Amino acid sequence: VKGEDVIHENWHVISSKEGLRHPFITVTMQHVQLPDGRIIEDWPIVQTRDYANALVLNEAGQAMILEGYKHGLGKSSWQVPGGYLEAGEGPLDAIKREVLEETGYTSSQWEQLGRFVVDANRHVGTAHFYLARHARQVAIARDADLEGFRVLWISIHELREALRNGQIALIAYATNIALALLALESKSTNNR
Amino acid sequence: VKGEDVIHENWHVISSKEGLRHPFITVTMQHVQLPDGRIIEDWPIVQTRDYANALVLNEAGQAMILEGYKHGLGKSSWQVPGGYLEAGEGPLDAIKREVLEETGYTSSQWEQLGRFVVDANRHVGTAHFYLARHARQVAIARDADLEGFRVLWISIHELREALRNGQIALIAYATNIALALLALESKSTNNR
Repeated sequence: VKGEDVIHENWHVISSKEGLRHPFITVTMQHVQLPDGRIIEDWPIVQTRDYANALVLNEAGQAMILEGYKHGLGKSSWQVPGGYLEAGEGPLDAIKREVLEETGYTSSQWEQLGRFVVDANRHVGTAHFYLARHARQVAIARDADLEGFRVLWISIHELREALRNGQIALIAYATNIALALLALESKSTNNR
Repeated sequence: VKGEDVIHENWHVISSKEGLRHPFITVTMQHVQLPDGRIIEDWPIVQTRDYANALVLNEAGQAMILEGYKHGLGKSSWQVPGGYLEAGEGPLDAIKREVLEETGYTSSQWEQLGRFVVDANRHVGTAHFYLARHARQVAIARDADLEGFRVLWISIHELREALRNGQIALIAYATNIALALLALESKSTNNR
């Protein structure tokens, strides 16, 4: 019983000081005490903005892929649409806005696939993932981002292949696509 | 053609300066030029250590879950084993070492599920994911980490449920599990 108490007890943050401040990222150095009494003088906690992504399927069941450069990767990667939540904005509103802005598409069928903290030790932020089905174009795409991209429509089979062969090189897009594939399979099994 | 050239052209890093240095994290401020000529004075790039995780299945096909506190989350979460790569260590060697150290288990069947950069804009690091099957215990677990944890064995069905209901609260573990579930399904389909 003692063991389990220790396992689930949270670390105690004794104090914290600013390590770095920037509009898109802060680093805080925490002085923490572990449940067993050990002290760590400077545990870095990083905070970037929370973001939302979505796998978007059109009426034909094809998946939307954006192809373009991402500076965190340093090269081009297949992506799914998404972006940072604005101040006070919920994740579902954010992803609907991002998909419309980036691609001109909208959907009336949004499914939440999960929310996950990005780094087990440093925090970094929270990622929200969605699946949008039966999407249709209602506006002209307006590229509000720093990076240009082009839109591809691929089959679910091609999407699975892309996940295996390295064309999806960033973890958020991979997670979103993998969770969406599992959700779609679960639906198709239930419909059999 | 002009459009596609721009899309795939990398950003040019004009100069960079140190924003923060710590044994587990560095932040570099980059002065970058975009392909369209725009200049950004201070684009933060974060570098933490690369890490590897694995979904480990035993001879009975049950999945290994570690339950314990993670300070990046601020509470307990279901996890899969893994940890940071040591200097000069490859990801497969790292995950074999971590699984043995953390749990006392070993496997002769390791499958690479993918490698992904953690943040599309800030980099952060690279995550490597594996599936280990037919694992067996060959040593006493030695908890070398700061956080205590306990080991659970759950069914593949329970694993899918955990992914949906929020028990897997960190993105690396969710990605690893989702990719492993897709790989296992693909195998079982091929064997039909």
